[in-house]
Amino acid sequence: MARTYHVVSTDDHIIEPEGMFDGRLPSKFADRTPKLAHDDDGAAWVYEGKRQQMSGLSTAAGQKVEEFSPKSKTFDQMRPGCYDPRERLKDMDADGVDAQVCFPTLPHIAGANFIELQDKEYALAVIKAYNDWLAEEWCGADPDRLIGAAILPLFDMKAAAAEIRRVAGNGIKAVSLPSHPHTIAGVQNYPDASWEPVYDALSETRLPAEVHIASGKTDTSVLAKSAGSPAEVFVCLAPSSNMEFVATILFSGVLRKWPKLKFISAESGIGWLPYFLERADYTHRKHQFWTGSRIDVTPSDLFRQSVYANFISDRAGVELRSMIGIENIMLGTDYPHTDTSWPDTQRIIKEQLGDLPDEDRAKICALNAVKVFGLDHKPA
Amino acid sequence: MARTYHVVSTDDHIIEPEGMFDGRLPSKFADRTPKLAHDDDGAAWVYEGKRQQMSGLSTAAGQKVEEFSPKSKTFDQMRPGCYDPRERLKDMDADGVDAQVCFPTLPHIAGANFIELQDKEYALAVIKAYNDWLAEEWCGADPDRLIGAAILPLFDMKAAAAEIRRVAGNGIKAVSLPSHPHTIAGVQNYPDASWEPVYDALSETRLPAEVHIASGKTDTSVLAKSAGSPAEVFVCLAPSSNMEFVATILFSGVLRKWPKLKFISAESGIGWLPYFLERADYTHRKHQFWTGSRIDVTPSDLFRQSVYANFISDRAGVELRSMIGIENIMLGTDYPHTDTSWPDTQRIIKEQLGDLPDEDRAKICALNAVKVFGLDHKPA
Repeated sequence: MARTYHVVSTDDHIIEPEGMFDGRLPSKFADRTPKLAHDDDGAAWVYEGKRQQMSGLSTAAGQKVEEFSPKSKTFDQMRPGCYDPRERLKDMDADGVDAQVCFPTLPHIAGANFIELQDKEYALAVIKAYNDWLAEEWCGADPDRLIGAAILPLFDMKAAAAEIRRVAGNGIKAVSLPSHPHTIAGVQNYPDASWEPVYDALSETRLPAEVHIASGKTDTSVLAKSAGSPAEVFVCLAPSSNMEFVATILFSGVLRKWPKLKFISAESGIGWLPYFLERADYTHRKHQFWTGSRIDVTPSDLFRQSVYANFISDRAGVELRSMIGIENIMLGTDYPHTDTSWPDTQRIIKEQLGDLPDEDRAKICALNAVKVFGLDHKPA
Repeated sequence: MARTYHVVSTDDHIIEPEGMFDGRLPSKFADRTPKLAHDDDGAAWVYEGKRQQMSGLSTAAGQKVEEFSPKSKTFDQMRPGCYDPRERLKDMDADGVDAQVCFPTLPHIAGANFIELQDKEYALAVIKAYNDWLAEEWCGADPDRLIGAAILPLFDMKAAAAEIRRVAGNGIKAVSLPSHPHTIAGVQNYPDASWEPVYDALSETRLPAEVHIASGKTDTSVLAKSAGSPAEVFVCLAPSSNMEFVATILFSGVLRKWPKLKFISAESGIGWLPYFLERADYTHRKHQFWTGSRIDVTPSDLFRQSVYANFISDRAGVELRSMIGIENIMLGTDYPHTDTSWPDTQRIIKEQLGDLPDEDRAKICALNAVKVFGLDHKPA
């Protein structure tokens, strides 16, 4: 149903509620249904011999910064908006947010925990069950406002392509792809030919791919790099670590062969992009010959064709927005993580974008996302 | 001798000439003197059972971009300015460059190849011999214009501190420290207490530390991260990979305890800094409690106190220079690597800095480096 979108956030997170898998797995796997366990240490999902706790930093909405802690919480210690879609909608109302793109937590942001399960038939069943719950229960609470990012069985790219077509038929409007796919067992990096069925399916269905920061395998990548460093180093660097993904997709040639692909670099911030796009073009101009470049246009042109990025608070990027591309910038509110702008999103929009022309502000706050996610928007 | 510095580059490279070690090692190591070997594949240094070729990309000054190649060159295929300090001075004259800070190549940029040698007594002898040659032969050609960055025996921090004091007494004006020290066998990352003797010695001698991009151990870090990606991805990302070093030193607490330390982030570019400093301050504001922050001031204040960065071509950074700190920006010409501005440095200064107030341009082009490296400058 058409509505007027004023603020669309393209970076938020679901805390999966108890019982979400119940009755959703084929009968042969019924006794392997993931279950939520509660104890004094908080809540944990139990499946396939794993016991998976949630970081308290992922359920921080409403806490003061002095209260942030990685210690796992019980569900009654979180805002119900973390795990209940109807409560989420109320929290969005309080924050002036019309729609959110919501990422998974339990399977890891882009599904790494499920993709790496040993029994691939079971893994596929769990992934499909997750996406069914996402479409029916989470987005079902208000499909115009809750946009779920589906996970894919990336251990088998033909199955992943089939899942893209299946979820698109169920009303899903986005998929979540990993920032560092090659850190997940059995998955190659984006330039690899194994990805072709996925690129075909995304082009055909027009589903955009959200690529959230630090969404490869949990234990590698940025965290490992900052060995011996204070935790603040990881927090500080995590957003711009998506630079690796953006460079890889731009120089891969993929966006020349599949020009309809749309990638959103989520929670990456935008302030490094003016530098990065200038550097990417410089790199291409000086190094295209000895490297045997796979692209015959400037990387910044490919970026503006196919890549988007969102930010929470980022004045450097807003200042130089014309060097990024005003059509390529979106907002994220990161609910309910520690960096969330909730419940101050309106104040932050005013501080960060108050001095922009109305047209630019409207594109950044909503209209770019309306176009990329195909939302049914009725101009005010 | 006082001179007027108009352009000081703080990022350039030495290609070590044949015979540089001859007669410089203690007699017990004379038969283990590193030697240059020539064959059809180009030139290679041979020592301790290793045969170390030089990438043709490191000797590219004067080549067209279409001719760049990683294939090793013989010395007669390079500009003599690569390896002969008197010829280097002529190339600097042709480019309007008054002074250069020169990094080693054979020992790797910050000495990793020598630091990792098994026989530590031999390693120390080779490092001292290198620094002696650097002071006497390279900088000796014109000590006011050629500023060598000495390497340190980081496998033993007390020996490293002693070497800092020794080279300072020999007229050396800078040391080269690795961007990713913890990727070198036996070396810890900068927050580790093992570094204290080095921080004491640098504070006492006032020698600035140049930290060049990709100067940990050759085979790890950024290159490894971009597995499966085109080579352009590494070239594009290598400069901003120094973001890891800058974040680590800012959040480590080291700059609170040793406020006289000066670090130059070399070849890193500057355009990511406005974003990064904003993100660092945001991180500190929101995450200082649960992380148990080691600093009690904003990271951007520590940056302006102690960290500098240089660039070759970087319009995004120049636009937002006030968000970085006009006193913290320097030029680099990266002679004789592929990204060098040689012989077009004057044109690039005009293009990049032509519209700046004279005072800002003078600081970036020379005066900031004059101050940090203690050059004897006579105002024009």
